[in-house]
Amino acid sequence: MPAQTIERWSTFEVELAGPRDGNPFAEVELSAEFRCGDHLHRVDGFYDGDGIYRIRFMPYLDGGWEFTTHSNRPALDGKTGRFACTPPAPGNHGPVRVGGNCQFEYADGARCTCFGTTCYAWIHQPEQLQDQTIRTLASAPFNKLRMCIFPKNYAYNTNEPERYPFVKKTGGGFDLRRFAPDFWRNLERRIGQLRDLKIDADVILFHPYDEGRWGFDRMEAASDDFYLRYTIARLAAFRNVWWSVANEYDFMKSKNMGDWDRFFHILQKRDPYQHLRSIHNGSKWYDYGKPWVTHVSLQSSDLTGGVRLREQYHKPVVYDECCYEGNVEWLWGNITPEQMTQRFWDGILRGCYVGHGETYLDPKDILWWSKGGVLHGSSPHRIAFLRRIIEEAPAPLVPITNMFGWEHNAIAESGVPGRFYLIYFGQHQPARKDLPLPTDGRFEIEVIDTWNMTFTPLPGTYSGKCRIELPGKPYIALRIKRLDGSAVEALPPG
Amino acid sequence: MPAQTIERWSTFEVELAGPRDGNPFAEVELSAEFRCGDHLHRVDGFYDGDGIYRIRFMPYLDGGWEFTTHSNRPALDGKTGRFACTPPAPGNHGPVRVGGNCQFEYADGARCTCFGTTCYAWIHQPEQLQDQTIRTLASAPFNKLRMCIFPKNYAYNTNEPERYPFVKKTGGGFDLRRFAPDFWRNLERRIGQLRDLKIDADVILFHPYDEGRWGFDRMEAASDDFYLRYTIARLAAFRNVWWSVANEYDFMKSKNMGDWDRFFHILQKRDPYQHLRSIHNGSKWYDYGKPWVTHVSLQSSDLTGGVRLREQYHKPVVYDECCYEGNVEWLWGNITPEQMTQRFWDGILRGCYVGHGETYLDPKDILWWSKGGVLHGSSPHRIAFLRRIIEEAPAPLVPITNMFGWEHNAIAESGVPGRFYLIYFGQHQPARKDLPLPTDGRFEIEVIDTWNMTFTPLPGTYSGKCRIELPGKPYIALRIKRLDGSAVEALPPG
Repeated sequence: MPAQTIERWSTFEVELAGPRDGNPFAEVELSAEFRCGDHLHRVDGFYDGDGIYRIRFMPYLDGGWEFTTHSNRPALDGKTGRFACTPPAPGNHGPVRVGGNCQFEYADGARCTCFGTTCYAWIHQPEQLQDQTIRTLASAPFNKLRMCIFPKNYAYNTNEPERYPFVKKTGGGFDLRRFAPDFWRNLERRIGQLRDLKIDADVILFHPYDEGRWGFDRMEAASDDFYLRYTIARLAAFRNVWWSVANEYDFMKSKNMGDWDRFFHILQKRDPYQHLRSIHNGSKWYDYGKPWVTHVSLQSSDLTGGVRLREQYHKPVVYDECCYEGNVEWLWGNITPEQMTQRFWDGILRGCYVGHGETYLDPKDILWWSKGGVLHGSSPHRIAFLRRIIEEAPAPLVPITNMFGWEHNAIAESGVPGRFYLIYFGQHQPARKDLPLPTDGRFEIEVIDTWNMTFTPLPGTYSGKCRIELPGKPYIALRIKRLDGSAVEALPPG
Repeated sequence: MPAQTIERWSTFEVELAGPRDGNPFAEVELSAEFRCGDHLHRVDGFYDGDGIYRIRFMPYLDGGWEFTTHSNRPALDGKTGRFACTPPAPGNHGPVRVGGNCQFEYADGARCTCFGTTCYAWIHQPEQLQDQTIRTLASAPFNKLRMCIFPKNYAYNTNEPERYPFVKKTGGGFDLRRFAPDFWRNLERRIGQLRDLKIDADVILFHPYDEGRWGFDRMEAASDDFYLRYTIARLAAFRNVWWSVANEYDFMKSKNMGDWDRFFHILQKRDPYQHLRSIHNGSKWYDYGKPWVTHVSLQSSDLTGGVRLREQYHKPVVYDECCYEGNVEWLWGNITPEQMTQRFWDGILRGCYVGHGETYLDPKDILWWSKGGVLHGSSPHRIAFLRRIIEEAPAPLVPITNMFGWEHNAIAESGVPGRFYLIYFGQHQPARKDLPLPTDGRFEIEVIDTWNMTFTPLPGTYSGKCRIELPGKPYIALRIKRLDGSAVEALPPG
């Protein structure tokens, strides 16, 4: 029989029938070794209910893979099999990883322009609303979604979820040793839909928006770890998963720093693919310098500080929460679309990544940031416009801090130094600007109205120190490209 | 002969004829003791050219004052006289001083709402332009003006002044031991005009915008001190003078911290009235904790930091330069009128003071910030609107930082706690807000559109925790007043 073939960075799954007696989640041990040449990984399997056990693996090398299962139950032990991993289809770039210069990249080296948004509790809403969220995302400019596993109890999100990750006990409360497979199957289906839309799922493992209503914010350490291993076993083989250990971790009173560090260690040990790992703060930052943190994941509105953070941590910096476009009562949820758009420009031109969210009051309390649904705001179109500009740049952006002396404009270059610049003036309204362009080539300059989404080329070409006229209104940027006829010569070696 | 009478806090002047030979500025010593009962002050006189010497004094106590002159020249020594100081006319509140709670007040205890603006080099422009500046100020909302004594050499201000503080030497350069009285008489006339408009002159004694063109930024220490004593002798008797030791002091390469401290000490020793003293920074702050600094005078755009600065220094905090409304090429000179207005609200509701400036490109290079002239911007009307609101408040504003929990809204109260609140949302656009008002009274709430300058009372009255609807757009504030029928009772002593 020819071996099954599977595309690189997709999910290979072993399905096995096994015991139903007792508590299979807690009592049955199941893992498998996957091997391809010298590459060997041991991954955990999981019980999926109804006597079915599964082991998932995401191959990352083309060629023949073999596996052997291990279990404390004979029916599941010593099973073997093989499959052939084939090159990825177009558009499948593999999982995101940390590349050079504090930037993300895909596993195949493709550039990753990470434009995130936030629907914390979308998988806990009725099916039709989840479907609508997927439809909205299909035409939105976002390719990363922050989303919680546990249900959320918070203003504008007080409805009971239809499914829970754990089985309910008859006397009330949850049996934290028994998972509810239907919850997890829906979660996986949704993550798979995101994957097919080329959207990463930034999966939030813990959060404080429970406050004892279900108790998932105050489980014992053993239950936390049990849940975490089960989550890894089920989700790690999705190429589009990122691990966010917690949202506003410091607002969770029943956890301490040892817990957070331990969760990172479990992810490090159990996730064969080393998906991205970070943690999101309330008011107190986690130490992103710790070696197990792959990138900085911030709640902060200080987008200009991104330059310093890149230098401090030498890791990608993601402003996952820099306030949301909306009109709710809290400062973090009532910025204007102009501000939301500006924060994207401000952060991205400093070599960082920025996340979106939307919190407009709704007669049915369907706020995007929590439940998904549809987008009402005016920033997503402008973010799409920005994303196009960034993707058209020759390479990822690197901030320049000394080009205009002491002034802290948002300036970045892209690719070979001296080839391509973006400059952004935010709310400032200069009517002129002196530009110190390189003298070894000629440049064309486009004035970008980032709000009205227009490009206006300035007449002529430019070189060296030059003065240009500008519209004298806010939200203007410049795109400056070296003309082909004046390409930078490669420097001699040494 | 009945004694001359003079209004309290106005300028009494003794005029004496004396020697013209040699260098009277440098060689003639002249001072006088002014006495009223136990109050005794020794003040320096000065040479005003043409054989005329003057001694100025600003009486601050009603009643009879006597004086006796002292000089190393017989013609000027031992002259005596007297005058009667009478109560001030309406509107004359005396000089500004530091009152309680990090706030300014006038010498008679009247509230001082300090709304500053900036025309650094206005006295160095042609007469007609100076006159126009005065006419503009007469109907502008500002009651403090930052202005330099020395001429300014900077972009948009490269014209040669018509007068100089020192006499020109025939071979070029200036005789730093001889002052040019016509310069000083014009300066005094302009300060007097400001006084009559109830505008304080925040006199900048040194600044870096010279760079050797005239050399006033790099005089020897003896010349600096000689200039400073002459300035004090001429100007200290104006009630509307503040001393700003320097603008962007840290950009002056030829001075060190010992120089700056010494200038403060000279002002402390020689100014009998102890006019307000501070110093304005470029990128490095002076230590405003030093005891001779009366208030914090900042270049900073971090208006929200004002709460912390009040707590740190226990002195009034003035954001003298928080960028200017305009469209020139530099970030500090191209903010929108919306931002300029917002910075006033942001700073004032944190119990601080804020300064205005305007830098719109002009075909004749007449930019308000440097030369005065007329105002073109849209913020002054809004600043006038704010000034009216602040002056209608029952007392100076005190910031409240804990009323809405962790949120950093701009909230201030005024007068007896619990009587009057202002809340400002800046660029945020809440469509609703939960207010935790005191439960021991009822309140009326007005929604203020700070940009369109309208007041909209909310229907009904409010008490305790209450939810209000808001316009859901930026630049909204609330004015909340306790109804008279529910006044706060005085607390029993102890």
